[in-house]
Amino acid sequence: MRKEARAMSVNELLRSSRLSWLAASGKESDVVLSSRIRLARNFREIPFPNRADFNQLAEVRLEAEKLLPGIAADLGQDFDLLDLERITPLQRDVLIEKQLISRNFIQNPQHRIVFITADRATSIMVNEEDHLRIQCMAPGLDLDTPFARASHIDDMVESQVDIAFDEKMGYLTSCPTNLGTGLRASVLLHLPGLVFTRNIQSIMNISPQLGLAIRSVYGDETESVGNLFQISNQLTLGFSEAEIIENLKTAVMEIVSHERQARKALALYMKERLEDEVWRAYGTLRYARLLSEKEVLELLSKVRLGIDLKLINEVEAGCFSEILISSRTSYLQNLAENENLSKNEIDRLRAEHVRKALLSYARGQENQK
Amino acid sequence: MRKEARAMSVNELLRSSRLSWLAASGKESDVVLSSRIRLARNFREIPFPNRADFNQLAEVRLEAEKLLPGIAADLGQDFDLLDLERITPLQRDVLIEKQLISRNFIQNPQHRIVFITADRATSIMVNEEDHLRIQCMAPGLDLDTPFARASHIDDMVESQVDIAFDEKMGYLTSCPTNLGTGLRASVLLHLPGLVFTRNIQSIMNISPQLGLAIRSVYGDETESVGNLFQISNQLTLGFSEAEIIENLKTAVMEIVSHERQARKALALYMKERLEDEVWRAYGTLRYARLLSEKEVLELLSKVRLGIDLKLINEVEAGCFSEILISSRTSYLQNLAENENLSKNEIDRLRAEHVRKALLSYARGQENQK
Repeated sequence: MRKEARAMSVNELLRSSRLSWLAASGKESDVVLSSRIRLARNFREIPFPNRADFNQLAEVRLEAEKLLPGIAADLGQDFDLLDLERITPLQRDVLIEKQLISRNFIQNPQHRIVFITADRATSIMVNEEDHLRIQCMAPGLDLDTPFARASHIDDMVESQVDIAFDEKMGYLTSCPTNLGTGLRASVLLHLPGLVFTRNIQSIMNISPQLGLAIRSVYGDETESVGNLFQISNQLTLGFSEAEIIENLKTAVMEIVSHERQARKALALYMKERLEDEVWRAYGTLRYARLLSEKEVLELLSKVRLGIDLKLINEVEAGCFSEILISSRTSYLQNLAENENLSKNEIDRLRAEHVRKALLSYARGQENQK
Repeated sequence: MRKEARAMSVNELLRSSRLSWLAASGKESDVVLSSRIRLARNFREIPFPNRADFNQLAEVRLEAEKLLPGIAADLGQDFDLLDLERITPLQRDVLIEKQLISRNFIQNPQHRIVFITADRATSIMVNEEDHLRIQCMAPGLDLDTPFARASHIDDMVESQVDIAFDEKMGYLTSCPTNLGTGLRASVLLHLPGLVFTRNIQSIMNISPQLGLAIRSVYGDETESVGNLFQISNQLTLGFSEAEIIENLKTAVMEIVSHERQARKALALYMKERLEDEVWRAYGTLRYARLLSEKEVLELLSKVRLGIDLKLINEVEAGCFSEILISSRTSYLQNLAENENLSKNEIDRLRAEHVRKALLSYARGQENQK
């Protein structure tokens, strides 16, 4: 069965900075970058990964590999296989940066694998926190498409193997926070307007009351860098999948509307300063020779805001996600095939990649895409 | 005689931001922007301008206008006439910014005029501090050419009128600091290397001992903005014109050599940071929408350094002097025909002009010159 999932060129995955699924423009894409659905499932007869021995983990892997051809045929998409045991720590870091795997997936890499489609929109993690984690992505605000795809994969799985399910509790998961539906729906938001007008905190404060968690993607507790936020359902138990998704969607549309109002206010009351700031950010990204990770995130957010407000027309919005990926430290180290680059060397490399990406997404006569 | 010097279109002079004489590239032009010779002369029979009554000032003007046809014919260049009485205070401010007249020239504009050639390299101020001030410019380090031209004009003048001259003291001037030769030779230097390596102060300290004065062109006593310095002879008495010029030339060559060493050291020991800084400066000038006068000077200095060190190749060095002129506040107010522009409006206009100038001096495919 192994043949069905061709052992992919890891480097191909790690070195690429474009996600073809993200190229399509989704709904509310001025604020919502992407939507994700993740389903946690476990085989009934095998202990959860954190309790399983090597033989049991191997059995999970084998079962998953058996399931794959059917899933692939059904989706009409081939899967690549990524074996975490066979890649270097640096390569694992790149996968974490790309959010293709989570950090706790790599502590014991034995029998941990990922199946992933060529467009990177669908992946199945095997032996992460749960036996199977089915993950589907879509551009913009669109939870229905990835949920339909994930559910379809889940149906295929459940039609062939016995999944841990309790009539009262629902799906059983390794961690109680996933119990019930085993569903985590999340949406990636770009909220420069709410951050700038200092309204972000009240939104973060109100989220738990709505059963939602919102967190800054980059930066720490005290400071968001790059104005990127992920919002997801906190509750998995006591609601149907449809209710969870609807609840998240409603909250996101509310946030989107607040964000747009904030941007409108900025564009109205400080148009000139805003224009100046977004163009300066563009000028710096376009020409700087040394760029830190943090600075890129900050500048990139401004440039994206400028594009979304139609203040900047020289470059396409697609540069945003490409630079988000290609400006990460591990990505660059892996590309240079050198883990021991100095901070300065990485900053230089990062600036080089940013310039290249901006040029490749430039509009008009400079277009070299 | 008035016809000989056509009453020029003031606006033509005020609105132009290119100086054709500066377009030629002079010697040591990586450090020396331009050289200037100024000769102060007074008619023997008429009191100095600060003591003269209106009739006497009118007489000076008349005498000067009589002299002009001969000078024009001899130089083979027509002169435009600028009558300070007939222009607005804002227009006068532009002339001061452009260093075509000095501030004390405009307090009493009656009978004060300037004759100026089309290439702006030669001018004769009438009834400024002295009756006649003959001023000649050259690009780069070249005091000989403008001195020869100024002397030639002086010879023409002295062959026709009686100039105040004392066998012992030499030429008599309104202010004792010009007594003797009446010669002020000065050179405009761009010294980012010496400023950055903090060697500028020792050069400024040593200058008086060499009979030279060095001053920052923009900024105040404590801070130079834009790293532009003017060095000129302090002594006009007790030395021949040739000695004064030779002395200044020697000092300038010494400073040029120090400046080049400083730049070499910067390029050697902090190449990456330097490259980053000059390109960021370029990126900001290229894209900012609001620029203050001070920021332009600072960024422009970095860009020019980048061009001279061959780090920046996208734009020609000529942008430097054009932006120096076209980013000044009075110039922009005059261009907009509005003295009452807010600081913000001027900053926006300035940024617009800077962008335009950079584009017009761009090399390669972007060249729209």
